[in-house]
Amino acid sequence: MSDPSPEVVEQLRQLLGEKGVRIQPDEVMPDVVLKPESTEQVSAILKICSAAGQALVPLGGKTGLANGHFQTDSELGLSLERMNAIEDLDAANRTMTVQAGCILQTAAEAAEAEELLLPLDFGARGSATLGGCLATNAGGNMVIRYGMARDMVLGLEVVLADGTVVTSMNKMLKNNTGYDLKQWFIGAEGTLGVITRVVMRLRPHPRSQNTALLAVDDFDSVGKLLRWLDGHTAGTLSAFEVMWPQYYEFITREGSAHRAPLPHGSAYYVLVETLGSNPEADAESFEMVLGEAMEQGLVSDAVLTRSQSERNAIWEIRDDVLELFKLGPMIPFDVSVTIEKMESFVNEIRTGMNKWDAPICIVLGHVGDSNLHVILGNENPEEFEYDALETLLYETVERYQGSVSAEHGVGLSKRAHLHRSRSEAELQLMIGMKKMLDPNNILNPNKIFSADKISAA
Amino acid sequence: MSDPSPEVVEQLRQLLGEKGVRIQPDEVMPDVVLKPESTEQVSAILKICSAAGQALVPLGGKTGLANGHFQTDSELGLSLERMNAIEDLDAANRTMTVQAGCILQTAAEAAEAEELLLPLDFGARGSATLGGCLATNAGGNMVIRYGMARDMVLGLEVVLADGTVVTSMNKMLKNNTGYDLKQWFIGAEGTLGVITRVVMRLRPHPRSQNTALLAVDDFDSVGKLLRWLDGHTAGTLSAFEVMWPQYYEFITREGSAHRAPLPHGSAYYVLVETLGSNPEADAESFEMVLGEAMEQGLVSDAVLTRSQSERNAIWEIRDDVLELFKLGPMIPFDVSVTIEKMESFVNEIRTGMNKWDAPICIVLGHVGDSNLHVILGNENPEEFEYDALETLLYETVERYQGSVSAEHGVGLSKRAHLHRSRSEAELQLMIGMKKMLDPNNILNPNKIFSADKISAA
Repeated sequence: MSDPSPEVVEQLRQLLGEKGVRIQPDEVMPDVVLKPESTEQVSAILKICSAAGQALVPLGGKTGLANGHFQTDSELGLSLERMNAIEDLDAANRTMTVQAGCILQTAAEAAEAEELLLPLDFGARGSATLGGCLATNAGGNMVIRYGMARDMVLGLEVVLADGTVVTSMNKMLKNNTGYDLKQWFIGAEGTLGVITRVVMRLRPHPRSQNTALLAVDDFDSVGKLLRWLDGHTAGTLSAFEVMWPQYYEFITREGSAHRAPLPHGSAYYVLVETLGSNPEADAESFEMVLGEAMEQGLVSDAVLTRSQSERNAIWEIRDDVLELFKLGPMIPFDVSVTIEKMESFVNEIRTGMNKWDAPICIVLGHVGDSNLHVILGNENPEEFEYDALETLLYETVERYQGSVSAEHGVGLSKRAHLHRSRSEAELQLMIGMKKMLDPNNILNPNKIFSADKISAA
Repeated sequence: MSDPSPEVVEQLRQLLGEKGVRIQPDEVMPDVVLKPESTEQVSAILKICSAAGQALVPLGGKTGLANGHFQTDSELGLSLERMNAIEDLDAANRTMTVQAGCILQTAAEAAEAEELLLPLDFGARGSATLGGCLATNAGGNMVIRYGMARDMVLGLEVVLADGTVVTSMNKMLKNNTGYDLKQWFIGAEGTLGVITRVVMRLRPHPRSQNTALLAVDDFDSVGKLLRWLDGHTAGTLSAFEVMWPQYYEFITREGSAHRAPLPHGSAYYVLVETLGSNPEADAESFEMVLGEAMEQGLVSDAVLTRSQSERNAIWEIRDDVLELFKLGPMIPFDVSVTIEKMESFVNEIRTGMNKWDAPICIVLGHVGDSNLHVILGNENPEEFEYDALETLLYETVERYQGSVSAEHGVGLSKRAHLHRSRSEAELQLMIGMKKMLDPNNILNPNKIFSADKISAA
C-alpha cells in the first residue's frame, strides 16, 4: 500500500485546520493523524476517505494490548483526543454523557465527585479513552460485579464508514425499540464505525471496601471458595483474583519491592474484595464469611487489610506483572476457560512447557470471570520460541473450548487464532456485517480479519 | 397473501412427521404450526421455507404484549415447544444451557434447586419460554439489580433465514473474540434468526429478602429516595416500583380483594425490595436505611413486611393490573422516560386526558429502570378513542425523548410509532441488517418494520 495521496491529505487539512492534522514524517510514529473536534468533522473526514478509498485507524489512548491501534504508513490515524468533553453528568438519572476521547480516569473522577461510580477500572486508566474502552469492550478488575464495558453503556453515537452519523444516545435503562444497534459497535475494535459519544450508566459509589489475601490448598477449594463468597456477600464481591504460586512467590521474593503478606508455599493465593455501603457492618460480615470459609477448610491462611495502604500493597502485588519480564523474554496471554477446566488446562500447558529447559510459565487471573493471564517464555533468550509458545497455548485453549481473547480483543495479534474460538459460520456472519457496514474496508482494515479474508468471503 | 402451498406443507410434514405439524383449520387459531424437535429440524425447515419464500413466525409461549407472535393465514408458526430440555446446569461455572422452548419458570426452578438464581421474572413466567424472553429482551421485576434478559445471556445458538446454524454457546463471562453476534439476535423479535439454544449466567440464590411499602409526599422525594436506597443497600436493591395514588387507591378500594397496607391519600406509594445473603443483618440494615430516609423526610409512612404472606400481599397489589379493566375500556402502555422528566411527563398526559369526560389515567412503573406503565382509557365506552389515546401518549413520549417501548418490544403494536424513539439513520441501519440476514423477508415479516418499509429502503 502506498502513502495517503497528498490531495486527500490537503483536503483534510482544509477541513480540519492546522490544529486538526498532525504530520510526523519520521520512521517510528505514524505519519498522519487527524484530530477532529466534532462529530460533524468525523463525518466529513469519513466522507472524504470513503470517496478516496483511504483507510483510517481510529485511535483512543493507544493502550490496547492486541495491536488494534497499529497504524501503517498507508493509513491515516483518526484520534478523538480533542473530543474529550464530559457533556453531561446527570446525578438524578445516574448517567454521564461523554465524548469518546475523554480519558477513563477523568470520567471516573467526575462521577466520583457526585458520589457515583463509573465501574470500569484497569491499569491504563490514565491514558485509555472511553471510546477505546467501548471499541474494545474493556474488562478489568470489577467485571465479576459490574460486567464489561458493554454492560455499562446505555447510548452511543457512531459515524459509519460513509460518514452517516447514527445518534443513539439513549439514557434509559430499558429501551426495546427495535434492534439494539449500539451492541454492534461495542467490541468491534473500530472496524464497523467510529464511536464519537457515549452515555454511560453510573452506580452508587461504594462506602466500604474490604480486601483480603487468602491462601488456598487446592484448585477444587478455589472453585468452592468463589461460590461460597459470591453466595454470602449479596452481590458485593467485586474481585476474585487468583495468583498461582510461581507468580506470587516471584513478585514477593527476597529483595523485591513487595513484602509477602502470606508465607510462600501455598498452592494458590486469592485476592478478594467486596464493595459495600455500610463500613462497620460490612467489615464484620466480611470477616465472618471468611472465618466460615476457613472453618470449612476452603482457606488455609488469610490476611485482612486494615488500612488503605495495606490494601494497596496487596493490589500492587497482583498488578506488578511487568516485574516478570526480569525473568526473561515472555509472552503474556489473555484467555478464558470455564472454571471447572482451569486446573487441568494449566497442567497441560505446564506439561507442554517441559520440552524446554528453563521454561517460564506463570499464571494469574480474574478467575471469577473465567479469565486467565498466562505468561510463557524462557529464561534463556536463545530458547525463546515465540511461535511455538503461541501454538502451544492457543491449541490448548482450542481443545478446552476456551476463548483466545478474554478481554484484550483481537486486533492484529490474535487474528490468526480467531478460528480456534469461533466457528466458520460465526466468522462468515461477522464478515458479512463488516462488508455491509464498511464495503470499501476503510475502517481499521486488517484488524480482527485480514483484508484477504474479507475479499475472499 | 395466500395460504401456504400444499406442496410446502407436505414437504414439511415429511420432514417433521405427524407429531411435528399441527394443522388447525378453524377461523380463530393459526392454520399450521411446525414443531421441530432439534436444531437440525429448524435448519431444514428454514431451508425449505427459504427456497419457497414461505414466511414463518417463531413462537415461544405467546405471552408477548406487542403482538410480535401474531400469525396470519399465509404464515407458518414455528413453535419450539418440543425443544424444551435443560441440557446442562453447571453449578461450578454457574451457567445453564437450555433449549429455547424451555419455560422460564421451569428453568428458574432448576436453578433454584442448585441454590442458584436465574434472575429473570415476570407475570407470564409459567408460559413464557427462554427463547421468547431473549427474542424480546424481556425485563420484569428485578431489572434494576440484574438487568434485562440480554444481560444474563452468555451464549446462544441461532438458525438464520437460509438454514445456516450459528452456534455460539459461550459459557465464559469474558470473551472478546470478534463481534459479539449474539447481541444481534437478542431483542430482534425473531426477525433476524430463530434462537434454538441459550447459555444463561446464573447468580447465587439470595438468602434474605426485605420488602416494604412506603408512602412518599412528592416526586422529587421519589427520585431522592431511589438514590438514597440504591446508595445505601450496596447493590442489593432489586425492586423500586412506584404506584401513583389512582392505581393504589383503586386496587385497594373498599370491597376489593386487597387490604390497603398504608392509608389512602399519599402522593406516591413505593414498593422496595432488597435481596441479600444474611437474613438477620440485612433485615436490620434495611430497617435502619428506611428509618434514615424517614428522618430525612423522603418517606412519610412505611410498612415493612414480616412474613412471606405479607410480602405477597404487597406484590399482589402491584401486580393486579388486570383489575383496572373493571373501570372501562383502556390501553396499557409500556414506555420509558428519564426520572427527572417523569413528573412533568405524567402531568402533561393528565392534562391531555382532560378533554374527555370520565377519563381513565393510571400510572405505575419500574421507576428505578425509567419504565412507566401508563394506562389510558375512558369509563364511558362510547368515549373510548383508541387512536387519540395512542397519539396523545406517544406524541408526549416523543417530546420527552422517551422510548415507545421499554420492555415489551415493537411487534405489530408499536411499529407505527417506532420513528418517535428512533432516528431515520437508526431505522435505516436496522433495515440494512434485516435485509442482510433475511433477504426474502421470511422471518416474522411485518414485525418491527412493515414489509413496505423494508422494500422501500
